[in-house]
Amino acid sequence: MKNFEFHNPTKIIFGKGQVENIGRKAAEYGQNVLLTYGGGSIKKFGLYDEVISLLEKEDLNIFELGGIQSNPRLSKVIEGVKICEENNIDIILAVGGGSTIDASKAISVGYYHDGDLWKMIKNDGDFKKALPLGTILTLAATGSEMNGNAVITNWNKKEKKAIHEAKYPDFSILDPTNTYTVPRKHTVFGIVDIASHVFEQYFSHTKSSYLVDSWAEDILKNLIKKSSVVLSSPENYEARADIMLASTMAFNGIIGMGKEEDWASHAIEHAVSAVYDIPHGAGLSIIFPNWMRYVLASGEEKFAQYGIEVFDIDPQGKTDKDIALEAIDETRNWFDRMDAPATLDYYDISRDDLDLMADKAVEDGKIGNYKKLDKNDVLKILKMSYN
Amino acid sequence: MKNFEFHNPTKIIFGKGQVENIGRKAAEYGQNVLLTYGGGSIKKFGLYDEVISLLEKEDLNIFELGGIQSNPRLSKVIEGVKICEENNIDIILAVGGGSTIDASKAISVGYYHDGDLWKMIKNDGDFKKALPLGTILTLAATGSEMNGNAVITNWNKKEKKAIHEAKYPDFSILDPTNTYTVPRKHTVFGIVDIASHVFEQYFSHTKSSYLVDSWAEDILKNLIKKSSVVLSSPENYEARADIMLASTMAFNGIIGMGKEEDWASHAIEHAVSAVYDIPHGAGLSIIFPNWMRYVLASGEEKFAQYGIEVFDIDPQGKTDKDIALEAIDETRNWFDRMDAPATLDYYDISRDDLDLMADKAVEDGKIGNYKKLDKNDVLKILKMSYN
Repeated sequence: MKNFEFHNPTKIIFGKGQVENIGRKAAEYGQNVLLTYGGGSIKKFGLYDEVISLLEKEDLNIFELGGIQSNPRLSKVIEGVKICEENNIDIILAVGGGSTIDASKAISVGYYHDGDLWKMIKNDGDFKKALPLGTILTLAATGSEMNGNAVITNWNKKEKKAIHEAKYPDFSILDPTNTYTVPRKHTVFGIVDIASHVFEQYFSHTKSSYLVDSWAEDILKNLIKKSSVVLSSPENYEARADIMLASTMAFNGIIGMGKEEDWASHAIEHAVSAVYDIPHGAGLSIIFPNWMRYVLASGEEKFAQYGIEVFDIDPQGKTDKDIALEAIDETRNWFDRMDAPATLDYYDISRDDLDLMADKAVEDGKIGNYKKLDKNDVLKILKMSYN
Repeated sequence: MKNFEFHNPTKIIFGKGQVENIGRKAAEYGQNVLLTYGGGSIKKFGLYDEVISLLEKEDLNIFELGGIQSNPRLSKVIEGVKICEENNIDIILAVGGGSTIDASKAISVGYYHDGDLWKMIKNDGDFKKALPLGTILTLAATGSEMNGNAVITNWNKKEKKAIHEAKYPDFSILDPTNTYTVPRKHTVFGIVDIASHVFEQYFSHTKSSYLVDSWAEDILKNLIKKSSVVLSSPENYEARADIMLASTMAFNGIIGMGKEEDWASHAIEHAVSAVYDIPHGAGLSIIFPNWMRYVLASGEEKFAQYGIEVFDIDPQGKTDKDIALEAIDETRNWFDRMDAPATLDYYDISRDDLDLMADKAVEDGKIGNYKKLDKNDVLKILKMSYN
């Protein structure tokens, strides 16, 4: 186990009906609320009206920033900072999925930043001050509801960058019923994103804590078990709750305790979706199994452990490599069963752009730890990701 | 899954050599430090000298409260509050196990309390203000290093009471090497205490989150696996680290998420050790398996799950009750293998005092949830706890 620090100050408020606390919670921070959200779904399904009415009941002044898209844009962040400045915002309230929350985190720290916002994001600096932030999560996926990270895209420069430990939400309201109406395909992309976060902390050369490793394996087993339930019964409360909890626990620091991590697949996907605006979870579904095949030779034993513990593969008479390859096939099969995309062809991504994407993925140097990947490695993984 | 809130602001700083940060960390809070500790072991093994020298390097003013015993006393808490008042203490630094940390939490909130301290503790009120508190843990057991609870004994009244959500340590330094010198028997009592915390959250009628249940089972499997390692090799870093992490994770709120809990065994043990000053873990080792047998009829299925998942009991051809009884025997066998006491005879506890203990255990009403226990139930469990 490596030395580590763990500190996660976000309060999670979990369960059916918890949204009704939002007015009272927001009022603790002041009078002026910036409500941030994405497309129209929260209006369509009534959550917007509910939140507005709860905030109005507390006589709060509500300002709005809607239309935050997936792969949230720098331009929206700049717009948000301006609203905060002009209206002395006391708390940002993000209602949505990871994109809305990520944009809101960047607004929260951007508010206290003088100078070029994109430079601040690219430098991933030490963010000392931030506006308070509450969230109401509507999609189980990114884990942004209980971590300090955000990913922002500068569409003009076709760049996608992450800031880390920037702003933990002060509180996050997690009501699984708010995910009942998530379309099947986005439920799937969310599940793939959650699984990817686990992979990125699990596949490591650190001699791990038995406990941390088995907790990671449990999140994966939980996801595999519950994914078939939510896809056939989207309003199954217990399954939606378990997947929402998995989202939060997969990326709040717990399963990374004491480990070297490997975020190469995320970096490659970010490079792909910075050029083609594809859903993050879809990109991960395409890239991750190919990353696994590519790095396998750097450590077969861990992949064998993954196969035995997560997929119950019988190790009898098999080498670590046999088990590992079976486990990677099982991963692909699971994604396939959920109709998650398997190849870059699915989004008509041109081979002519692979070089640009590979450049972007490694622009700050080699990526990953399980195997350190240079541009050539990334190109190979991208090429493996076609039919 | 029940609705729940989770908020744990303690920062944990984990690993070999982390103590060297203590001077710098303490200095963040101010000049005046109250160093609290227990018997002589931190002096004997050099930790005291190390901490003093690190605090002196930062030119801090050090005040001391040593001699905090297990089952920490109200009298020590009162003494600590007085030192804080007289010396404008900025931070309390607890170096020790759960008793030292618990006493320090009570001092931390007691400092801001006017009036009768014991009344405050018995009322388990809403503690609004508290002095900053850092800890350096030297015993893996109570989980006090990452929760807001403390248990204090009023020896004059032979009463032992818990306060909850009173004060989370601001930071806790967890260096597994500081547990190398813990005597075998206290290592064992610590392990039993950790296991008991898991049991108390695991055995529940709440239809649980699959994830939370399997995380609890993993802590138990981890403990069983690593207990034999640390008992034969007390300086095995990875095993000590895994047990220290288990201690912290078993009682920081995570495995209680969304569940009704059952703390009856703790209440019974507290009543026993309020009358006879026996080690908490030893009392739990005696009482828990008997509690299990006594409440089994209130829900055999969960105990069967425990047996299958934690002890790998083959369910083939067995009823839930068969599996459950086997699991309880396995629990007792595990405690026996570690030489943890099995009966009240071990401490010469007189049957004449059982009535007094049973009265104390239920003085605030029935205890537990798996089966609600009245005085008569408690008496039966105590009587089962003799040879």
